[in-house]
Amino acid sequence: MSSNRMEISELGEFGLIDRIAGNARRENASTIAGIGDDAAVVDCGGNDHVLLATDMLLEGIHFDLAYAPLRHVGYKAVAVNVSDIAAMNGKAEQVTVSIGLSNRFSVEAVDELYAGIKAACDNYGVDLVGGDTTSSRVGLVISVTAMGRAHKDKIAYRSGARKSDIICVTGDLGAAYLGLQVLEREKQVFLANPNMQPALDKYEYLVGRTLKPEARTDIVFEMAEKGVVPTSMIDVSDGLASELLHLSKQSGVGIRIFEDKVPIDNLTYDTALEFKLDPITCALNGGEDYELLFTISPSDHEKIRLHPDIHFIGYVHEDKNQNVMISKQGTVVPLTAQGWSHFSRQ
Amino acid sequence: MSSNRMEISELGEFGLIDRIAGNARRENASTIAGIGDDAAVVDCGGNDHVLLATDMLLEGIHFDLAYAPLRHVGYKAVAVNVSDIAAMNGKAEQVTVSIGLSNRFSVEAVDELYAGIKAACDNYGVDLVGGDTTSSRVGLVISVTAMGRAHKDKIAYRSGARKSDIICVTGDLGAAYLGLQVLEREKQVFLANPNMQPALDKYEYLVGRTLKPEARTDIVFEMAEKGVVPTSMIDVSDGLASELLHLSKQSGVGIRIFEDKVPIDNLTYDTALEFKLDPITCALNGGEDYELLFTISPSDHEKIRLHPDIHFIGYVHEDKNQNVMISKQGTVVPLTAQGWSHFSRQ
Repeated sequence: MSSNRMEISELGEFGLIDRIAGNARRENASTIAGIGDDAAVVDCGGNDHVLLATDMLLEGIHFDLAYAPLRHVGYKAVAVNVSDIAAMNGKAEQVTVSIGLSNRFSVEAVDELYAGIKAACDNYGVDLVGGDTTSSRVGLVISVTAMGRAHKDKIAYRSGARKSDIICVTGDLGAAYLGLQVLEREKQVFLANPNMQPALDKYEYLVGRTLKPEARTDIVFEMAEKGVVPTSMIDVSDGLASELLHLSKQSGVGIRIFEDKVPIDNLTYDTALEFKLDPITCALNGGEDYELLFTISPSDHEKIRLHPDIHFIGYVHEDKNQNVMISKQGTVVPLTAQGWSHFSRQ
Repeated sequence: MSSNRMEISELGEFGLIDRIAGNARRENASTIAGIGDDAAVVDCGGNDHVLLATDMLLEGIHFDLAYAPLRHVGYKAVAVNVSDIAAMNGKAEQVTVSIGLSNRFSVEAVDELYAGIKAACDNYGVDLVGGDTTSSRVGLVISVTAMGRAHKDKIAYRSGARKSDIICVTGDLGAAYLGLQVLEREKQVFLANPNMQPALDKYEYLVGRTLKPEARTDIVFEMAEKGVVPTSMIDVSDGLASELLHLSKQSGVGIRIFEDKVPIDNLTYDTALEFKLDPITCALNGGEDYELLFTISPSDHEKIRLHPDIHFIGYVHEDKNQNVMISKQGTVVPLTAQGWSHFSRQ
């Protein structure tokens, strides 16, 4: 092996993406935005721009069929792509789904997978318009591409946050991460003693958050109803801290959030303590919540101030090098991205 | 295992696709065409419709890194998707590329892969606008989605062939299949005796056809220049016979082709005989040539009659149950689809 070999783990996923994006061709007039947002933006001649997002899920990396039902895997594969379109303030209308299957899967298993895909399509009003089916030597591979649209003046990029904007996040955070911890623990218990029944009832909300996340298309719809266009937006897939740093970097601004404003469900809080984890760390770095993180102009605050599921967690300031959280004790804690790093885990 | 288990090989890839397509949601007004053509067609409000195609390539199924350089794998992954857009009479303008990589791959290997992707993007005038990178437990997975456009009145579907239309195919057929046979043979020779050098020079054309196929975007451009809109079109990925049967089924017409009109390169012909294969069988069932198969109205024949790379191989008739080839001896041979069947091979 060459001594010049560089491991992918040295770059990390974001480093790898930067390397790829740096060399990507982007010359067609129709290409409005490419790599670096939740979805690409393409001008197709109408008042709406087309949004294009894609995600690939691999067995053993993104899901474990020991506890993830195929129906949920199918649902999630569509939902996470619909979430990417929502994060641009758009509406997904079509998806393509490609699957690679080993011969360990029966037709009935494929039916289960597609039942989940169909349930997600029905729920989000998205059509399944294409895909590819192939055999795989190893487990299940699912690659989904979602196509959506948004009026060209109402697209929310990661780069639009401005000084004094209010930072908002929907729902609650950290639950999906703790749901995964619960599932992993029960799997180990089961492997040690196959007669043990998994004790999941108590954690139903957390497990649901990790196995069957929902895209917050409801928020996109409600914001439009209230006439609010986020100045910037991203979905929380890698963890709140990581997403905040994306907004900071791409908008060239600083972020200041308050620990006591970060929404954490009671069950998430208690379960974190049970696992001897810090609840706020789970919320900041857990990931896979698929909530929407966005910024609004202060003048729009009044319009959504009373929304029960939108939380105002901080504000945008000028210094892009100051991305911090004010703890409950009043200390200033720098935000650092941990997020998911599949590559370094290996 | 349940006695009700149905194996995917019992359905086959096309059976599986029919099963999936039968249940696919297709309700949005913007969805013009979904599963069942080379690309989905979406109305985005302009004079052009958007075309969306996707293909997934898996190591060990679609390519073997023992002989396929990563650069070629990247090139091919883009080219086959651009070919799907061309097969709708459209022009691809954007692609997304998702990759799953095991830690056996170095950053330099990823650079090679993306050098091929970039070469294809440059060659076809396509922008790389997004994707996903993830680790894989096993080998390389590449999923590409191409987005293109075509004027809404000039899209060529599989369903438009009509009685008396002339059947046309570009380039030559069977070469990619024989290139693969050559590579497999040399791999076995190498495995038996690692000191043997592969003898590929003589087969360069065939090997190039299988490792680095080209999308026939040139034909789409030239047909537009001459004012010809194919009545139906498909690209030759699974083999000429299989594609002809798709046109027959979806257009509700019969196909009659002539063996002596099917274009086969001399090297393909000679190499088929060397492998004790029937050259016409390789052309009919080999697949992966990525030539364009299309039908034109007889009134358009004069416009492209002298094109050096378009071959007129037969005609369309009324009876959809009569899909035949007239052999050189004048016998009538029914066309049957063999194509690639990754599932049944396992």
